[in-house]
Amino acid sequence: MQFYLNGYTPGDPDLQDAGPAAALRPARIPDLVDVLVIGSGPAGVVLAAQLAAFPGIHTRLVERRSGPLQVGQADGIACRTVEMFQAFGLADQLMREAYWVNETVFWRPSPDDRSQIMRTGRVQDVEDGLSEMPHVIVNQARLQQYLLDHMRLSPSRLEPDYGMEFIGLTVEPDGSHPVVVTLRDAATGTGSTVRARYVVGCDGARSRVRDAIGAVPRGDFANHAWGVVDMLAVTDFPDIRLKAAIQSADAGNILLIPREGGYLVRLYVDLGEIDANDPDGREAFRDKHTQASVIATAQRVLRPYTLDVKSVVWFAVYQVGQRVTDRFDDVPAGQAADGPTTRLPRVFIAGDACHTHSAKAGQGMNVSMQDAFNLGWKLAAVLDGRASPALLQTYSAERQAIAQGLIDFDRAWSKTMASQPKDPARPELGGVDPAELQAAFVQAGRYTAGVATHYASTTVLTALPTHQGLATGFTIGMRLHSAPVVRLADAKRVQLGHVALADGAWRLYLFADVDSQRLCALLQFLAESPTSPVLRHTPAGAEIDSVIDVRAVFQQGHRALRVQDLPPLLLPRKGRFGLIDYEKAFAPDLQHGPDIFSLRGIDRQQGAVVVVRPDQYVANVLPLQAHADLAAFFAQCMLDRR
Amino acid sequence: MQFYLNGYTPGDPDLQDAGPAAALRPARIPDLVDVLVIGSGPAGVVLAAQLAAFPGIHTRLVERRSGPLQVGQADGIACRTVEMFQAFGLADQLMREAYWVNETVFWRPSPDDRSQIMRTGRVQDVEDGLSEMPHVIVNQARLQQYLLDHMRLSPSRLEPDYGMEFIGLTVEPDGSHPVVVTLRDAATGTGSTVRARYVVGCDGARSRVRDAIGAVPRGDFANHAWGVVDMLAVTDFPDIRLKAAIQSADAGNILLIPREGGYLVRLYVDLGEIDANDPDGREAFRDKHTQASVIATAQRVLRPYTLDVKSVVWFAVYQVGQRVTDRFDDVPAGQAADGPTTRLPRVFIAGDACHTHSAKAGQGMNVSMQDAFNLGWKLAAVLDGRASPALLQTYSAERQAIAQGLIDFDRAWSKTMASQPKDPARPELGGVDPAELQAAFVQAGRYTAGVATHYASTTVLTALPTHQGLATGFTIGMRLHSAPVVRLADAKRVQLGHVALADGAWRLYLFADVDSQRLCALLQFLAESPTSPVLRHTPAGAEIDSVIDVRAVFQQGHRALRVQDLPPLLLPRKGRFGLIDYEKAFAPDLQHGPDIFSLRGIDRQQGAVVVVRPDQYVANVLPLQAHADLAAFFAQCMLDRR
Repeated sequence: MQFYLNGYTPGDPDLQDAGPAAALRPARIPDLVDVLVIGSGPAGVVLAAQLAAFPGIHTRLVERRSGPLQVGQADGIACRTVEMFQAFGLADQLMREAYWVNETVFWRPSPDDRSQIMRTGRVQDVEDGLSEMPHVIVNQARLQQYLLDHMRLSPSRLEPDYGMEFIGLTVEPDGSHPVVVTLRDAATGTGSTVRARYVVGCDGARSRVRDAIGAVPRGDFANHAWGVVDMLAVTDFPDIRLKAAIQSADAGNILLIPREGGYLVRLYVDLGEIDANDPDGREAFRDKHTQASVIATAQRVLRPYTLDVKSVVWFAVYQVGQRVTDRFDDVPAGQAADGPTTRLPRVFIAGDACHTHSAKAGQGMNVSMQDAFNLGWKLAAVLDGRASPALLQTYSAERQAIAQGLIDFDRAWSKTMASQPKDPARPELGGVDPAELQAAFVQAGRYTAGVATHYASTTVLTALPTHQGLATGFTIGMRLHSAPVVRLADAKRVQLGHVALADGAWRLYLFADVDSQRLCALLQFLAESPTSPVLRHTPAGAEIDSVIDVRAVFQQGHRALRVQDLPPLLLPRKGRFGLIDYEKAFAPDLQHGPDIFSLRGIDRQQGAVVVVRPDQYVANVLPLQAHADLAAFFAQCMLDRR
Repeated sequence: MQFYLNGYTPGDPDLQDAGPAAALRPARIPDLVDVLVIGSGPAGVVLAAQLAAFPGIHTRLVERRSGPLQVGQADGIACRTVEMFQAFGLADQLMREAYWVNETVFWRPSPDDRSQIMRTGRVQDVEDGLSEMPHVIVNQARLQQYLLDHMRLSPSRLEPDYGMEFIGLTVEPDGSHPVVVTLRDAATGTGSTVRARYVVGCDGARSRVRDAIGAVPRGDFANHAWGVVDMLAVTDFPDIRLKAAIQSADAGNILLIPREGGYLVRLYVDLGEIDANDPDGREAFRDKHTQASVIATAQRVLRPYTLDVKSVVWFAVYQVGQRVTDRFDDVPAGQAADGPTTRLPRVFIAGDACHTHSAKAGQGMNVSMQDAFNLGWKLAAVLDGRASPALLQTYSAERQAIAQGLIDFDRAWSKTMASQPKDPARPELGGVDPAELQAAFVQAGRYTAGVATHYASTTVLTALPTHQGLATGFTIGMRLHSAPVVRLADAKRVQLGHVALADGAWRLYLFADVDSQRLCALLQFLAESPTSPVLRHTPAGAEIDSVIDVRAVFQQGHRALRVQDLPPLLLPRKGRFGLIDYEKAFAPDLQHGPDIFSLRGIDRQQGAVVVVRPDQYVANVLPLQAHADLAAFFAQCMLDRR
């Protein structure tokens, strides 16, 4: 954590220097804004938190509710999401408060007495080494609050505009602020119009922004329904503090999720399928499945154990089909092609507006936040003049494919989880075998941890894996898989990936070749050459690492290296005093098992350049001597600023 | 971190339920209070934060300044202090913000050119396994703010009374509130009188409370002086981000302390000794050693390296002698003996009022906070009716001896650090050998980490080491040295010592015997016997773990144990709903090296009882079958509440 670059200030170091523009922002939404975000759910707050790092961009976040979420909704935080929270400086707080999912257990009918359940399996929840971060559980309300706090402390001092309802929008063919949005004050009913450069609908499964741009969710006609109860209860069920998938013989299925604080627990009680297109059926279904009936079902499933519910904190009947919207922006298919008729996107949707999932795999909130993390830096790059608006086409291209893949995964996974258990005495009735369920769970671990996301090499942001062999553990198109290193200047053991803040900067991780010669030549090129991407894409006057942040990992242990021998680009001068930033150079950690070169399959002879996007995805792997290729890669996605 | 025991509440879980008394507390100091703490420095805020956990105790914290500290003063946080911060729930925030002292380097005159310095040594700062917590550096202002925030969120909602100056006090011979304190409003000059049950002077090296009780600091007649500069600077000195002890041949000595945030650095520039009793000399000294002259000295010491100071954040000339006050409470020597004439203490001093140290070993602030942590739970125990007021005699007895030992250590250490380096060409001139300095540093590591504190078996709180052999790594009289375990109910890897919150409760750590039979018998005794100390010392209606908190560590791995087999005392029912607390039972961590039984030398055949005080010090080690001895131990220090 770096601070005091421009001088000491007392108080919370998370309180960033406010940009001069932030102080001039009106309390009420003005007529013109840069980005209007609709909805302060997980996608909305991640997007706004990312944009808030750029005080020159006027972002507003409107929310229909009168204030922050207080209780309920989602709660599962995948490893990948915790990694993203680290970039916002929020992971420590999250990990401290949250329940940690360490192991998952499986219960099924006892072969001796099928009216009773017994534990049949127990697995480690996240495989070793999958992420440096845990799988945790915390109330969505808290999760959003962390990000709201972050926004408030950001250089933009951004706070949501509560009580503002989205009514509709139109996109004009030209003009600087072509998106005309109609809002309504939820308290007074007063309407207003805002013009925005860009609008993002993070307004949930019944998104009005999605409707306004004519995008259509496709998928199941049926919804699967779950009774969801957050409760404080007394039980003799022994695994009440472990995540548990429980199948009874004939009373139904439960997914049990222990919650933060040591006492709270969530039950997802399977209520079966309903016709999504029959509103009368939905009403009747909701009337039938009351809080009392759902708890009674849970009590039957848990037999022979008892469940004495002392306090219901939240109850909902959650009905969801597996659906994905056909496109995530306002450009109809066929209009996004190259050529003079290209229409560039002005309106986007993210989160549940784009895709809905079964609750079982804990995907919804996590994928929503990753949508926003994908879009946030791109919007910032375009509005800050770093990249051309064409970059924004990659959002729908990348995220729609990921969502479709997840829906396919999720559908199979939900079916497995919701199936009746197989009765060994009557195999002809079908059903899922407990061993099959457990195996599926283990295989699905990478998906559910959020680290299986793999962007295809179909956009300028993801290179072909020509040089993947130089760093086999940093897969192009996947998130940078962090590993421990030692920071040279202060000998601190740190995670290399944690240098990546949610600041909109690209990162170049340079892994040294055997004698560091190619590394040093590349650093000299980056620092001095007129074709250096660092120099070309960084405006005069901006910090040298604000657009492309260069970090190097040497092969020697940290005591064998000398700070005074570092090339100048690894000791950059920054801020109003021209202070030296000492956190650019790293050594392998030679004292705690395999080092980063071994862990991530880096070629020790040749070294490697790993190019990482602002959202932490590996964009390219190149040889250290491929100066021109590196420059060409950045020239594809960034604008020349010199 | 446990919360929601009495129901879900939205928002920050660190915000505790406020006791009903807290709401009734007047904004201005009333005529009668339970505890009046004078001074909001490190000792004062730790003491107030500890007392704030007890809303039934009316504590006030008065501070002469008009608001919180903004900058400067101490900055070194020993491992032991971080352990204590963990008990307040503040360690994660501290570790995130702070600089971590990983290695220390030593510089001395180059043999080739004695006008230039060169690096002669480099050591790991804290030896492996000494503490689970790091040695860190952060501004005293931030450190105090964490504790002020904790107080504000506590059940007492305690906030300091700023702008109130301590004038004097008298102790009346009897009455419930015998300490009569005169205060003055610093802004208006208005005087006021407050009667308190107890008063604690945390009012620094020139403590007026100390003077009021007639206690006398003893020690050096001379003060050692340091120029202290917190700065943002540009330098080519390569170890600017490592703690560095720098001796030049003839320009002087520096201790360099990197600071939080990656840019700030503190220099302690040695200014030599001055006569502490000559106020004119002190003035002249201060005039002579200006900010400019101190920086110039530092620049000379650092040759051949340059130091370009861009911003001075704080500058002070710090003059300190090694002194310890003869007693830490208001009972004159000879009056604290047993018998009917025993006078019990009513006024205490803590921190710099008791002892002053050289800056070199980073002891002052840490020892001050440990004073307060020692006293806080004792005051709370007496005022809450848990213990008799005689318990308060142990404060001065324990802490005065520790302070004296530290002064002795510190004097030797400071002398070493301040000595001229030995000139190999002229050994007859004396001086300290660099190798000797480095060796002393390594040996002193345990002292400076704060984990060498060892209370003697001269009070009821520290038993004789009769059964120490059952748990050789939990030394009676020393702080509980934490080790990793696996929490049974949720399979989470945790530090056993982190169950100890700053809540005033004793902890009984029960380590299982080979077949758990003695463990189970002891748990039954504790839960059911009329002579059980848990039952005897816990008032009816209070939580069963609120006075003596029982935790068990089994010998089997966590997957070999069943939650449903745990004795009831390890699944206690708590709160308004009678919820089960699942965090009392642990298993060894069998997957990451030696387990806790091996790490801490616990007898696997017989097991052990480790009795730990509310301030985390081991009070006794007993056999599991020594039920009567255990009861007798608690009967010595606690009152019967049933």
